[in-house]
Amino acid sequence: MSIKIGILGYGNLGKGVETSIKYNEDMELVAIFTRRNPNELKTVTNTKIVSIDEIQDWKDKIDVMILCGGSATDLPIQTPKYASMFNVIDSFDTHAKIYEHYNKVDKVAKENGKVALISCGWDPGAFSLNRLMAESFLPNGNTYTFWGIGVSQGHSDALRRIDGVKNAVQYTIPIDKAIDRVRSGENPQLSIKEKHLRECFVVLEENANAKKIENEIKNMPNYFADYDTIVHFITEAELKQNHSKMPHGGFVIRSGKTGVDEETNQIIEYSLKLESNPEFTASVLLAYARAIYKLAEKNETGCKTVLDIPPSFLINKTYEDLLKNML
Amino acid sequence: MSIKIGILGYGNLGKGVETSIKYNEDMELVAIFTRRNPNELKTVTNTKIVSIDEIQDWKDKIDVMILCGGSATDLPIQTPKYASMFNVIDSFDTHAKIYEHYNKVDKVAKENGKVALISCGWDPGAFSLNRLMAESFLPNGNTYTFWGIGVSQGHSDALRRIDGVKNAVQYTIPIDKAIDRVRSGENPQLSIKEKHLRECFVVLEENANAKKIENEIKNMPNYFADYDTIVHFITEAELKQNHSKMPHGGFVIRSGKTGVDEETNQIIEYSLKLESNPEFTASVLLAYARAIYKLAEKNETGCKTVLDIPPSFLINKTYEDLLKNML
Repeated sequence: MSIKIGILGYGNLGKGVETSIKYNEDMELVAIFTRRNPNELKTVTNTKIVSIDEIQDWKDKIDVMILCGGSATDLPIQTPKYASMFNVIDSFDTHAKIYEHYNKVDKVAKENGKVALISCGWDPGAFSLNRLMAESFLPNGNTYTFWGIGVSQGHSDALRRIDGVKNAVQYTIPIDKAIDRVRSGENPQLSIKEKHLRECFVVLEENANAKKIENEIKNMPNYFADYDTIVHFITEAELKQNHSKMPHGGFVIRSGKTGVDEETNQIIEYSLKLESNPEFTASVLLAYARAIYKLAEKNETGCKTVLDIPPSFLINKTYEDLLKNML
Repeated sequence: MSIKIGILGYGNLGKGVETSIKYNEDMELVAIFTRRNPNELKTVTNTKIVSIDEIQDWKDKIDVMILCGGSATDLPIQTPKYASMFNVIDSFDTHAKIYEHYNKVDKVAKENGKVALISCGWDPGAFSLNRLMAESFLPNGNTYTFWGIGVSQGHSDALRRIDGVKNAVQYTIPIDKAIDRVRSGENPQLSIKEKHLRECFVVLEENANAKKIENEIKNMPNYFADYDTIVHFITEAELKQNHSKMPHGGFVIRSGKTGVDEETNQIIEYSLKLESNPEFTASVLLAYARAIYKLAEKNETGCKTVLDIPPSFLINKTYEDLLKNML
């Protein structure tokens, strides 16, 4: 008996799910659904690829559909829509709109007797869990989240939209000095600029004005103006060779005080060092797909988040085994 | 409405619970129960102290009883016994006997309509959760647990039992080189000796033979023989001044591979740096006491572990708040 997985959307995340599934012995990838012409796509693992127009026919053949679209325009529509047909999971990561997304998805999932889980991955996801657990364990303290070193898709896109920029990659870099201050138990107040540095590798169009573009980048509101930003101009070949991977990671640090007079420093730190952001996100999605499957078996319905899931539901082991060898 | 907490056992852990409770606004400490003569004890916070002989009278006055006895002889008897009267939580940490303990407690708790949670704290506890989540997120890989720098109660006790030893403290020290190898993604096979060092601070009785005792320590099976062990002989005054705190901590590191051909390194690391082991353990117990209270409100019964608890049950916040500000 294996959990039948479907993938909707065949970009970096979809490919990550496709290649990660083999590390989960209790799962099987049934089909990948796409908005593109299936005949023009070739999958890494020779999995069957199906047009999204036929997705309805697969309602009884898939236990959990993993939605691999983007948060800006795909998921706000897709997750409620497909929660009417399937148990679904997504990686919706627009933090400010999670509550709204949750309510929409919850309504549809409940009406159709399905389980959905939104905002899964590492942030939101593993980092959210750690923020919550750390604050529960040390209610008197501060939580700090640092991101990087890693490629920020949003910031890279912002660079590419600048007139005269042909291509670009932006790295978010956490500042060691700030992390060390947090780890020391100092509980510092940190400005945006003190926590992260932004480093940009930019390929210019011919005849573009480098000086002007560097200035435009450094003063771009929201994205760069509040940070120290380093800009390098490089060739397209250099960009391809040195900056085509998608590493990421970061740190969640809770610095708390216990004791009669708050005299005791206690530090909890969770960190990720990921050579591939989409492959790791995919791998976390699969663990939670397993949990959704188990919840559906128990006839649960509605929208869930990582904050709802009993940890033992994530793993392919018996409870007896967990008590004997994991606890 | 606040959660009414009782403490059974007034040692380091009991005191930790007593002093940590004020950081949890939704809780109130009702009474501390002791096997000693209550008239001879003074509590740090002036909490009422009651003889264990009267504990039955408090059945309806306490929502969760936190059992702060030791794992060797207290908890195997106390947890099943008091799970017949109260919702209970313990920090039972004899890993090899958790399964047996679980079954005993589960039976009594179910028969009496109570919720129990065993083996809570940081290992077992927060470390177990992280071992489980990390393996779920990266099923292809290895998990490494390192402990320290910290005082090991068991090893300190073993030193104190040696003839000619008046007092002693043992520090478990994780070996940086091993941690660095794990963090690099190398996935090394590590021997016991390669992971931890043992450092002992020993006060001798008058006329004791230091050379003979050092030899006896270094060759003690299970405790020291398999490790590199450093022994320092110091005075009782030095021991009191420099080694009376109870720091601890450690690292759970998962080193996993993803990708088509396992070509991608992914590292998850969780670490604790605790100035007080009992105060942190107490603080984790309180978070799970809150979860037990919520489960009891939902009419759940039986024995649970940290692996069963939905994370959102641990914190004193509404779900809406969590979706908006934590996820």
